[in-house]
Amino acid sequence: MDVLEAIYTRRSIRKYTGQPVDDEQMQKILKAGFAAPSANNKQPWHFIIIREKDTLEKIAEKHPYAKMLVQAGCGIIVCGDTEKEDRTGYLVEDCSAAIENMLLAIHGLGLGAVWCGLYPNTERTAFISELLGLPGTVIPVGLIVVGHKAEEKEPSSRYDESRIHYERW
Amino acid sequence: MDVLEAIYTRRSIRKYTGQPVDDEQMQKILKAGFAAPSANNKQPWHFIIIREKDTLEKIAEKHPYAKMLVQAGCGIIVCGDTEKEDRTGYLVEDCSAAIENMLLAIHGLGLGAVWCGLYPNTERTAFISELLGLPGTVIPVGLIVVGHKAEEKEPSSRYDESRIHYERW
Repeated sequence: MDVLEAIYTRRSIRKYTGQPVDDEQMQKILKAGFAAPSANNKQPWHFIIIREKDTLEKIAEKHPYAKMLVQAGCGIIVCGDTEKEDRTGYLVEDCSAAIENMLLAIHGLGLGAVWCGLYPNTERTAFISELLGLPGTVIPVGLIVVGHKAEEKEPSSRYDESRIHYERW
Repeated sequence: MDVLEAIYTRRSIRKYTGQPVDDEQMQKILKAGFAAPSANNKQPWHFIIIREKDTLEKIAEKHPYAKMLVQAGCGIIVCGDTEKEDRTGYLVEDCSAAIENMLLAIHGLGLGAVWCGLYPNTERTAFISELLGLPGTVIPVGLIVVGHKAEEKEPSSRYDESRIHYERW
């Protein structure tokens, strides 16, 4: 799929068939995350791949917008390591770039995904940190639900001239 | 260009020919920014396109890593509107996803770009806000330098198994 087409047609997918994401696909998705830019090239990210049903159910029970996680069958928690990047703003930017790369790679592979927010919701980050045994120096920034799509969505047009400014505000 | 290839081969470009980015290219780049996902679909972004040499020079003089801005001939400041998203963490995530989409679109168009950090560096955000007349409710999150490439870079391989975890940390 062409990169512009992928960017323009990617949508948040919330219905899944349950067919597993295979290891080759997962490796391509992770490679996309690693390819993101980062502030001062610190690459402060970690990726936790979750496929165990019990863990998926616990997260889906706690996170109000991740109910589809169990049906999807796979989640990727993207975390930022504050020992590699101690400025939280940059850490969040770096992890977000990695997440967006992964969402586009997933779409390009014909799979579906949705980004479920964790940071800055402290209730969610505390729960995930406890559940997955994260060190205190690591922040879970976002959850990517990934799987085989059971819905197709039309591209949404969000182009809005009023948000574009020339030379100054 | 294939989306996976675009993700894997995108690099930060710091040398430019000075040839202008045309309006059609700019529209495709902005469309990519607008296509990003955002927390609760709030789409809290604004884009300021800067081509005036005097402004580019002022930014390049102040920002320690944006010296190539003048040669590139164009910068896009991606801002987040706190009146649309009052949780700064999500605002930064949304704007970062938009920036990453735009970086990939730029690469797909055969142009070059580099993401120069603004937020959370308060010296830089204050300078940009003053220079461009941003409302107090708007945060300049990042600067994209964009132009025609005067350098080619090999893809960098950052895949690191030690950053991948299964089921828990």
